[in-house]
Amino acid sequence: MSLNRLYARVHEVNSLLCIGLDPAHTSNFSDLISFNRRIIDVTHPYTAAYKLNTAFYEAEGSSGWRALEYTTAYLREAYPSIFIIADAKRSDIAHTSERYMRAFFDRLGVDAVTLNPLMGHDALAPFLEREDKVSIILGRTSNPGAADFFDMMTDGHPLWQRIVEKVATEWDARRNCMLVIGATEPQHIAQARAIAPYVPFLIPGVGAQRGDLAASVQAGITADGRGPLINVGRGILSHSAPAAAALRYQMAINEALQR
Amino acid sequence: MSLNRLYARVHEVNSLLCIGLDPAHTSNFSDLISFNRRIIDVTHPYTAAYKLNTAFYEAEGSSGWRALEYTTAYLREAYPSIFIIADAKRSDIAHTSERYMRAFFDRLGVDAVTLNPLMGHDALAPFLEREDKVSIILGRTSNPGAADFFDMMTDGHPLWQRIVEKVATEWDARRNCMLVIGATEPQHIAQARAIAPYVPFLIPGVGAQRGDLAASVQAGITADGRGPLINVGRGILSHSAPAAAALRYQMAINEALQR
Repeated sequence: MSLNRLYARVHEVNSLLCIGLDPAHTSNFSDLISFNRRIIDVTHPYTAAYKLNTAFYEAEGSSGWRALEYTTAYLREAYPSIFIIADAKRSDIAHTSERYMRAFFDRLGVDAVTLNPLMGHDALAPFLEREDKVSIILGRTSNPGAADFFDMMTDGHPLWQRIVEKVATEWDARRNCMLVIGATEPQHIAQARAIAPYVPFLIPGVGAQRGDLAASVQAGITADGRGPLINVGRGILSHSAPAAAALRYQMAINEALQR
Repeated sequence: MSLNRLYARVHEVNSLLCIGLDPAHTSNFSDLISFNRRIIDVTHPYTAAYKLNTAFYEAEGSSGWRALEYTTAYLREAYPSIFIIADAKRSDIAHTSERYMRAFFDRLGVDAVTLNPLMGHDALAPFLEREDKVSIILGRTSNPGAADFFDMMTDGHPLWQRIVEKVATEWDARRNCMLVIGATEPQHIAQARAIAPYVPFLIPGVGAQRGDLAASVQAGITADGRGPLINVGRGILSHSAPAAAALRYQMAINEALQR
C-alpha cells in the first residue's frame, strides 16, 4: 500500500512533522536549491515528509521548476526514506489530469500530490488509480475564504463534509488517499475524523496560521491509531535555528499524541 | 480595462475562437515548440486567443515549462495582439496564490489565467486585484464528475450557480473576470448568463467534448452584446488541416452570433 512508505518513515524517525519547503525569499535557481539543501540537511532527522508547494517554484518560471526537480532528486539521493509531497492543488478534466498525474508521480517522482476536489471524480481518477502513490485531497482549508464555499450548507451539511464523506466512502477505495484539514478550527478536524475514521490527515495551519497544535493532533488520530501529518512551513523556514524549531515541533506533536 | 485587450483582438480578426494549445503527442522541448509554432503560424488569422493548459507542459517537467515560456514569448513577438490564457486552474491560500499570480501574470506574462474558486475569496484576491489582467474562474466545467459537487444543491440552487453569482456580484468588482461554463449542456450557459449578465464566458467542450456550438454561442452572449470565447483544442490540433478547421470554427461561431 502506498501509505506504507509514509508510515515506515514516520516509524523510522518517530516524527509526524512535515516541513513545507516554500522558499519565500529566494529569487533564482541557485538560491532556491541552496536554501532547500540547507533546510533539509539540518531538519531531516526530525522530519517524516517534505511538502513542496509548486507556487514558490513556478514564481521563478522554468528555472524554478528545475529547482523543484533538483530538490526532489536531492531528497531521493541523500535521504531516500523521506516521503515527498508536491503541494500542487491540481485538477482538470480526466484527459488533462492524466498529464498532471504523470508530471508529478512519474516525471517529478514525488510520493504524493495535493488535489482540488471541486471538479469531481473523473478529474481525480488518474491520480486515485495509482495504487503506488498517495492522493491528498483538500477536505477543508484553513484560509478565511474557505467560508465562501467549503462551509456552504448542502442538505444540512457543509460542502466540506460532503467532500470528506465522498473521499472516505468512494474515492479512497484503494486506501491511497489522505485529506487536508486545516488546523485553524480544531473542531473541523474532529468532525472530519468522525466522517472519515480511517483516512489519514495532513494538517496545515499550525505554524504561521496559528492553529492549536495539541488539539489538532489529538483530533486527527485515525480509528486505527495513526497520528496526522502536521505541516509547518514559515514556523521553521523563517526561524533563526530551523533544526531546533523542527525538533521542538516533533516533540510537541509526540507529546500531544501521548496525552 | 483588462478585457479591452481581448475585445480589441476579437474585433481585429472578427473571431471569438480560442485555440487550446495542448500538445498531446509531443515529448520534449523542441517537439513542443515546433508543434506550437506550426499551429500558431497557420491558425492565427482566425483566432482571438490561445489557451495553454499547464498540464501538457508540466508533463515534460522544467523543459516543458521552458516550452510554455518560449511559446508565450513567440506569440508576443510574432503576433502581439493575440490574447494569451494560461489554463492553470490554480488556487491556494493568499500568501501562496500571490506567488502563482506573479508566476503567470508577470514571469510568464500571460493576459489571463484560469482559477479554481473552491478555496474562496482570499485565495483568488491576488489575481482579482490585478486590473491589468483577467481572472477566468471555473463556473461549471463540462466533465462528468462536475455532477459530484458543482451540481450539489445549496439552499435551492446548485453550487455552481452560487459560484457564478459570487463572481458576478462580488469578485468582478474590477470588471476583470470571465467565467468558464462548459458547453456539454447548453442550458447551463443560459442559466449562468441569467445570473451574471455582463461577465464574459469562456466556453470549452465544443470540440472533442461535443457540445452544441450554435446553442452555446447564442446562450453565451452578454447583456451588452459580446459573444463568448469558444475554446477548441483537439478539434483543431488533431485535424489534418488545422487552418481549415480553425476557419470553419470561426465561421460557425460568427454564423451562430448572427442568427
